[in-house]
Amino acid sequence: MKTITTRRTVRQYSGRDIEPEMLQKLLAEAARTQTMGNLQLYSVVVTRSAKGKAALAPAHFNQPMVESAPLVLTVCADFRRTTTWAQCRKGTPGYDNLLSFLNAATDALLFTQTFCNLAEEAGLGLCFLGTTIYQPMAIIEALQLPQLVFPVATLTVGWPAEEPPLSDRLPLESFVHVECYHDPTPEDIDRFYKEKEELPVNREFVRINNKETLAQIFTDIRYTKSDNEALSKTLLQALRKQGFWK
Amino acid sequence: MKTITTRRTVRQYSGRDIEPEMLQKLLAEAARTQTMGNLQLYSVVVTRSAKGKAALAPAHFNQPMVESAPLVLTVCADFRRTTTWAQCRKGTPGYDNLLSFLNAATDALLFTQTFCNLAEEAGLGLCFLGTTIYQPMAIIEALQLPQLVFPVATLTVGWPAEEPPLSDRLPLESFVHVECYHDPTPEDIDRFYKEKEELPVNREFVRINNKETLAQIFTDIRYTKSDNEALSKTLLQALRKQGFWK
Repeated sequence: MKTITTRRTVRQYSGRDIEPEMLQKLLAEAARTQTMGNLQLYSVVVTRSAKGKAALAPAHFNQPMVESAPLVLTVCADFRRTTTWAQCRKGTPGYDNLLSFLNAATDALLFTQTFCNLAEEAGLGLCFLGTTIYQPMAIIEALQLPQLVFPVATLTVGWPAEEPPLSDRLPLESFVHVECYHDPTPEDIDRFYKEKEELPVNREFVRINNKETLAQIFTDIRYTKSDNEALSKTLLQALRKQGFWK
Repeated sequence: MKTITTRRTVRQYSGRDIEPEMLQKLLAEAARTQTMGNLQLYSVVVTRSAKGKAALAPAHFNQPMVESAPLVLTVCADFRRTTTWAQCRKGTPGYDNLLSFLNAATDALLFTQTFCNLAEEAGLGLCFLGTTIYQPMAIIEALQLPQLVFPVATLTVGWPAEEPPLSDRLPLESFVHVECYHDPTPEDIDRFYKEKEELPVNREFVRINNKETLAQIFTDIRYTKSDNEALSKTLLQALRKQGFWK
């Protein structure tokens, strides 16, 4: 996996299409990822049509790559197929609950990331859209997802038409704990975040937003308490609607 | 990533240790995985000591690889470090909610899977323990995880001392949907599950458990409705206790 250390999120794609055979190979290989009881509790909806992308775009706040990418993949936590299988086979399925949602979401996300690693190694450029769980009902409607299917990841996929700079990462000691968790002290925080806070691009970001600190960009603008609380409510409503909250 | 098509879960490990430098390299490379706002909402607790493994084992129903593997990694959804950072920098963090838990769990699981792909490519053998979210409180206590830290994945890691047969996978058409979701009919189910149901190992599994169908092995024995419902309650309690359920 030589590409991992040089990977970047790619949001601009060339006009070149992705051949169905290539996509199938990547999906089949990604499906070698381990899953719960080897049940493969996920499904993938492939959107290639302009109409399909236009239907998904609002759910992702109209980020341009949804419509400009040749391919949009929506990966779902899926207990539907397994439940139907059980119903057809005299089983008594009981997967309409929080644990089962998280089990299926886990399968879906692990599968998604192997797909990302494989696709990037094959030269494709990807953007992972965190917006998937912000407005899940809009995606559920656009893709006609039935009960016990819930979108957890969206990828826009294409051949790269940009090579953005590599993004920074926190030092290993900030997220690796030995034997037990070590709560960071204010001094630890200073050390962990120094490089990130001093990056010219981040300093400029703070300046143009009239903030004092980089952390405020996240708490006051990008991921605010009030947004998170409102979106948690709609997320819970969507989980109920899809039958994952008995 | 040549190893993906031949990977298998490995539960038996040789006595050979994993050098700290190798582990650090794999963790640093895995951290190239994309995360929400590049915040890296995860942490990893590395357990090498016999005492630490013994403390974790009951949480994983004493599956033997927890104590026999040279290394156990517990990957956690972590909004703690980011919240502390914000508090030290005049921010107003609001990540004590369901959306934020799922955002951090997503980061943690994507990171985990890149780690798996890298480690397997480097020749290591892994077992992903789905039991992590079954008894999260036991893990939270063993690893002293504070508020806003929640375990979502556990890997036992070592040099393989077995080469189990490759496991089966469902056909691509069972989990790939074009443009919108196509609910499987009973005929689809027959086709999708035929190979799995006819495998000699699975037929034997049905026979020795005195069941009629393979699906019943899952619904009646491995992942039952009553277990799932009880474990959903303790999962929700643990989310509340860790401060992710405002």
